[in-house]
Amino acid sequence: MFAVAVHAGAGFHSPSKERSYKDVCMNACAAAARILNDPSVEFAALNAATAAISVLEDSPLTNAGFGSCLNFDGHVECDAGLMCGKSLLFTSVGSVSCVKNPIQIPKHLILQHLTGPVSPIGRVKPLSLCGDGARRWASEVAGIQILPDHCLISHAAKNRWRRYRGLVDERDRSVASSIDEISHFKKPRHGDKLDTVGAVCLDTSGNICAASSSGGIPLKLKGRLGQACVYGCGSWAEVTPAVSVGCVTSGTGEQLIKTQLAQRVASKILKRTDGSLPNIVNASFQEDFLDSRFLSNETTSKLGGIVGIGNTGDARDPLSSSVVEFFFKHSTESLAYGFYISNQMTKPLVAVSRKSRTLPTGSDYYAFTCK
Amino acid sequence: MFAVAVHAGAGFHSPSKERSYKDVCMNACAAAARILNDPSVEFAALNAATAAISVLEDSPLTNAGFGSCLNFDGHVECDAGLMCGKSLLFTSVGSVSCVKNPIQIPKHLILQHLTGPVSPIGRVKPLSLCGDGARRWASEVAGIQILPDHCLISHAAKNRWRRYRGLVDERDRSVASSIDEISHFKKPRHGDKLDTVGAVCLDTSGNICAASSSGGIPLKLKGRLGQACVYGCGSWAEVTPAVSVGCVTSGTGEQLIKTQLAQRVASKILKRTDGSLPNIVNASFQEDFLDSRFLSNETTSKLGGIVGIGNTGDARDPLSSSVVEFFFKHSTESLAYGFYISNQMTKPLVAVSRKSRTLPTGSDYYAFTCK
Repeated sequence: MFAVAVHAGAGFHSPSKERSYKDVCMNACAAAARILNDPSVEFAALNAATAAISVLEDSPLTNAGFGSCLNFDGHVECDAGLMCGKSLLFTSVGSVSCVKNPIQIPKHLILQHLTGPVSPIGRVKPLSLCGDGARRWASEVAGIQILPDHCLISHAAKNRWRRYRGLVDERDRSVASSIDEISHFKKPRHGDKLDTVGAVCLDTSGNICAASSSGGIPLKLKGRLGQACVYGCGSWAEVTPAVSVGCVTSGTGEQLIKTQLAQRVASKILKRTDGSLPNIVNASFQEDFLDSRFLSNETTSKLGGIVGIGNTGDARDPLSSSVVEFFFKHSTESLAYGFYISNQMTKPLVAVSRKSRTLPTGSDYYAFTCK
Repeated sequence: MFAVAVHAGAGFHSPSKERSYKDVCMNACAAAARILNDPSVEFAALNAATAAISVLEDSPLTNAGFGSCLNFDGHVECDAGLMCGKSLLFTSVGSVSCVKNPIQIPKHLILQHLTGPVSPIGRVKPLSLCGDGARRWASEVAGIQILPDHCLISHAAKNRWRRYRGLVDERDRSVASSIDEISHFKKPRHGDKLDTVGAVCLDTSGNICAASSSGGIPLKLKGRLGQACVYGCGSWAEVTPAVSVGCVTSGTGEQLIKTQLAQRVASKILKRTDGSLPNIVNASFQEDFLDSRFLSNETTSKLGGIVGIGNTGDARDPLSSSVVEFFFKHSTESLAYGFYISNQMTKPLVAVSRKSRTLPTGSDYYAFTCK
């Protein structure tokens, strides 16, 4: 038995493009499932999560890899992170440019920790690399192709950037001297903000890996680091004998860093003594994000989402029964997601969850018992 | 009443240079105390912690700012982070070069959050910047001077780098094919490893700020991010009505990231219901660092240290009694530190703590009751 959860961002997904978002989630689930289904693949959960993220990065619809939001200077700069539940290793890349699939860098970093030789002179292997150094390591050590910047810029991203830069330049040209005066400027459309993509994979050996990748927020400053590359914030995975969990976050990166949302939700699931998983996730999202004391001075809406898989019971023991639970919760307008569990579903379930006037957050939950 | 704690690294401090390490800690305490003593200074704890760190950065003895360990390419690249207990804001800079005092970048970032205008078009202010983007922001927005790289390289750092690079190059030239064969290579001397500096300041308004700055590990890869710039890992500060805490970590950055040591120790101090502070710190250091499940696969020694200040009782109410507690704990060979509390000491207490054969960790604790 294996399971896959993916999401194409907690943000806003135009209803007119809903089919396309579902398709990319379907393809991401399928890419992970192909790997999880192959008994010859080593580090299956790790490779499957990376494969799912790569599909999401390659889509111009998502804010990761090709088609990412452009930074203030008009370039693509990406963050990505990856955590392995069995080894508890987290690796990441921050603010890297000219790499088609940023998630490949943390994958190679983590494999270097798991399989590379120990340094005879005691050099410590890095967990996180950023900027030009990350790009060089990707090329020289991991053999990842470096592309010209324009190869990662989509037509839509360029247009969004022109519109946003126009707003800033218009404001700078004005002589507005107070917030009141300049608050009349048209804000970017909510629908233009798309966030971090993510994937969680549970493999047949019982390992769970969680991965996220992001192009960051529109007009971000060059060198800005978002939650996808920060320990505990963009993804979390832990495997214990009785409970395993993997989760990934999406939304406003700075808020997800301040609240360390991935780790906090995972930690409460691992400590579960009673209470259903949806109740735990709902309570944690409310307490650790919406009502968090770390966000008490926020000047913008609290926009976040979490997607994850919990696995109770020993998945490595085929005679015991294992419960796989898939969950998500978001305070953003929408969340595009996909979910697949082998032996229970013939194809991935893909959908776009939307919050409504009566439901200030969107959430859902599926549970499967596998014997 | 105000208090200052500083350290010049948990690592190894040559006995022959002990006087110099004490002097730099003395100067760092004095720089902070001058600011904390001046009632006209705004954001006193923040400015004092930054001033103390700047003194430590400027010393060629410490591994921060001038005299930092050089990266594999022979350049200085620094990380620094700063957390404010009242606002719960953490800002940082990662892998920045050509800046004399890297701590100035998180200071300007945090002041932008605390005092800058809200963006009329909803742009989110960054918490962390890295690499070239950080350097450009420092120069263009914060007005920080950019220096040629060689201005930050000390004679001793250059010599250490030549020796370490020589070891790697020697190994690369050899045809060693197994760990056994190459384990005969001479390892860098323990005494050559110095780590992150830190400062914690409690001001007369009851705010606590914690700051750390680091040149990273010897021969680190270009773009490697260490704990000083990672949320929860290099520094932590929280002010609550009853208990306030600030702490900073030092040691092997990757181990301090995996264990989120600064936040974990602070969290246990904040939750204190019974038990003395030294017992809490000792237990947390053992459980959350030395015995941490996140370090169970480590191939190198667990080298870390923590320095902090706890403040119980309402320091803002002069009629209530306030207890100020200073603590440190380290598994490294030594830790150089300084501590000062106004109205209780005529000058800072500075010392180098050394672990011994009978004491596998070094630690100490001082408590002052102020009425």
